[in-house]
Amino acid sequence: MTFDYAGRVRRLQDRMHDSGTDVTLLSVGADLPYLTGYEASASERLTVLVVRQTGDPVLFVPQLEAPRVEPGQFEVRPWGETDDPVASASALTSPSRVAVGDHMWSVFLTRFQKEWTDSDWIPASEITSELRVRKDAAEIDLLRQAAHGIDRAMARIPAEVSFSGRTETDVARDLGALTLDEGHDSADFTIVASGPNGASPHHHPGDRVIEAGDLIVCDFGGRLGGYCSDSTRTFVVGEPSKEANEVHALVESANEAGRAAAAPGVPCQEIDRSARRVIEEAGYGEYFIHRTGHGIGLEVHEHPYMVEGNDRALEPGMSFSIEPGIYLPGRFGVRIEDIVVCDEAGSESLNQSDRGLVSVG
Amino acid sequence: MTFDYAGRVRRLQDRMHDSGTDVTLLSVGADLPYLTGYEASASERLTVLVVRQTGDPVLFVPQLEAPRVEPGQFEVRPWGETDDPVASASALTSPSRVAVGDHMWSVFLTRFQKEWTDSDWIPASEITSELRVRKDAAEIDLLRQAAHGIDRAMARIPAEVSFSGRTETDVARDLGALTLDEGHDSADFTIVASGPNGASPHHHPGDRVIEAGDLIVCDFGGRLGGYCSDSTRTFVVGEPSKEANEVHALVESANEAGRAAAAPGVPCQEIDRSARRVIEEAGYGEYFIHRTGHGIGLEVHEHPYMVEGNDRALEPGMSFSIEPGIYLPGRFGVRIEDIVVCDEAGSESLNQSDRGLVSVG
Repeated sequence: MTFDYAGRVRRLQDRMHDSGTDVTLLSVGADLPYLTGYEASASERLTVLVVRQTGDPVLFVPQLEAPRVEPGQFEVRPWGETDDPVASASALTSPSRVAVGDHMWSVFLTRFQKEWTDSDWIPASEITSELRVRKDAAEIDLLRQAAHGIDRAMARIPAEVSFSGRTETDVARDLGALTLDEGHDSADFTIVASGPNGASPHHHPGDRVIEAGDLIVCDFGGRLGGYCSDSTRTFVVGEPSKEANEVHALVESANEAGRAAAAPGVPCQEIDRSARRVIEEAGYGEYFIHRTGHGIGLEVHEHPYMVEGNDRALEPGMSFSIEPGIYLPGRFGVRIEDIVVCDEAGSESLNQSDRGLVSVG
Repeated sequence: MTFDYAGRVRRLQDRMHDSGTDVTLLSVGADLPYLTGYEASASERLTVLVVRQTGDPVLFVPQLEAPRVEPGQFEVRPWGETDDPVASASALTSPSRVAVGDHMWSVFLTRFQKEWTDSDWIPASEITSELRVRKDAAEIDLLRQAAHGIDRAMARIPAEVSFSGRTETDVARDLGALTLDEGHDSADFTIVASGPNGASPHHHPGDRVIEAGDLIVCDFGGRLGGYCSDSTRTFVVGEPSKEANEVHALVESANEAGRAAAAPGVPCQEIDRSARRVIEEAGYGEYFIHRTGHGIGLEVHEHPYMVEGNDRALEPGMSFSIEPGIYLPGRFGVRIEDIVVCDEAGSESLNQSDRGLVSVG
C-alpha cells in the first residue's frame, strides 16, 4: 500500500502558507509517517523532518537508522553520534512561526527554542489534523480490515479463551495472540478488567484471578498496515446478576444511540450527548466518567473527539469510536466500543461482533 | 518491591533548590514512576506531576485513570473530560525556571508556555538524571533478574528456535515469547536482522526468509519489575564463512575490551574508545557506526552514554550497555551487547550468555 506522500506534503505546505507557518518540525508521532511513510523511533537520538512552505522537506535521521529510510520526495541527512542534529536543522532557516509535532519530546523542543529564540510555537496538529481527519478509501479499507480482525478475535473468545480461575494477565496474553493471529501486524494494548477492576476504565491487567459471575471488560487493538483497531466487549463468566444484565443493556442502548446519531453535519458533541442521554435518563449519568469517543486512524486516539464542547460537524470519511460505559466503584464496569466511519448516507460501524453480554467459561 | 519515593522527591527538591529551579513538570517517561511509582499513559489526556521546591507534589490525572493511582506522598487531582488540566496546574504557582520531563509531549509544553510566558525552560534530565544514574542495590537486583532472564532466553535459542526458511518476523515472535516465558513482565523490542539486513543496526524484523549461512543479529529485551533488559548476540545458520568468523571474533574482542575498561573513575568516552580501538586497529573502524553504549534502568536508554565527548567518570552503581558492532552494507552485521554495572572493584557483566558465534538451525 503506497499513499500519495508528495501530494500530502504539498497540501501541508498550502496550509502552512495560508496560516503563516514558516516551518513544521515532525518527529515521533503519526504526522511523519503520514507525510513520508517513515516512522521515527522514540529515542534520545532525534529524528526530525523539517518542512518549509516550498521545496522538499529535509529528514534528519540518526546514521544508524538511515538504512531503514525508504527513498521518497524528501532529502535525507543522516547525522553521526557526535553531531548536533538540532544545530544542523535550525541552520536551515529562521522562522517566525513554527509548528511542532504534538508528540515531539520536550527535550528537543526546548533545544530548538534555544536556537530560534524569537519564534512563535504552535502544535502541528493545528495544521495536520485537518489533513488527516477525513480518511480516503484506502485508509478506510485498512481501518475496516483491522476492525474485522478484532471482530474475528472477539468471536473466538467464548470458545477459545478460558477466564475462570485465570489471571487478567493470562487472558490479556491470549487476546494479544488472537489479535496477531487475525492478521494484525502488532497487538498494541489490551485491557482486561475483571469484577471490581472493571470500574477502572483504563485498568492495567494484573494478578486478579477471575471468578464465576465476574463481568470482564475486554478492550484491545493493534495495527494493520499502519492503521489502528480498538474495540471493547464486556463478557460474563457464567450467569450475570439481574443488575449486571440491566446495566449492560443500558450501555448497549447508549452505544446504539451514539451510532444512530452519527451522520454528516452532526456536531461531534451531539454523538456524546446522544449516548450520554440514555445513561443519564436511567439514573447512571455520574458513572459514565469519560467522553463517548475519539477519532482513529494512524493513531489510536486522534481528532475528532466525541466530547461535550466540540461543535465540529462530522463529515464523510471521519472515523471514530463510540464507547459509552458505566463504572460502579468497587463492583463492576461495562463498556461497549465500536469504530464507526461517517459516510454520505450516515455512518457505518466497522465493528460488528456480538454486542450482547456473552457468557464465557 | 517498594522504593523510598518520598526520599527521592526530597532529593529532587534539594537539587531544584540548589539549581534555582522553581517547578518540575513530569508526565510520560521514567522520572514520574521513579518519584511516585505511577506511570503516565502516553495520551492526549495530560497526566502531570507538579513538583515545587517545598511541599507535596500534586498529580493531575485524567479522572478515568485516577483509579489506577496508588496513594503516596503526593496530592491527586483528577480532572474531567471538559476540564483544562494545564490551566489548573499552572495556576498553582508562577515559576521563573521550569524543568520539563524530557519526554513530555510538545503539545503540552507549548500550552504551559502560553500560561507561564516569562519562564525559563530546561529539560528535567538536567536535574533528574543525577538522581537516577547511580542504581541502589534493589535496582541492581531487578536489572540482574532481567538480564538473567534474557540470558536464559538466549541459551534456549539454539535448541528451541528454528531460523532457516522462516521470516525475521516469525523469529522475532519466538524471541518475544521466550522473553515473557523467562519472567519478564513485557517484551518491549525485538531486532532480528538477518543476512544483509544485519548491516542496519536498528532493523525492524520483516518478511525476509532466513537462509543457510546467514548471520542473524538478535537484540531484544523487555521489563521486569519496571527495570529494563537489553542484550544482543549474533547467531549463524549452519557454518559461518571465514570472514564472518573473523569479524565476529573482532567484535567479541571489542566487547571484551569495553568491559575490561569499565571501572570507577574511568570516563564514559574511554569505554567507547577502548572498544572502538580494537575495531579500528583491525581496519573496520568505518563500519562501527554508533556509540558503544547507553545507560539502562527504568528506561532502556538513559544516562550515562558511552560516547566520544562524554568525559563523565563512571561511579559504582552506574549500569550501561557495552555493544560494539560491525556493519558491512549489503552483506552482514555483527553486534554483541552486555549490560554492565560499575562496582567498587571494577564492573560486573549482568549478561553472561555465550558470546561466541553460536550455530542455529
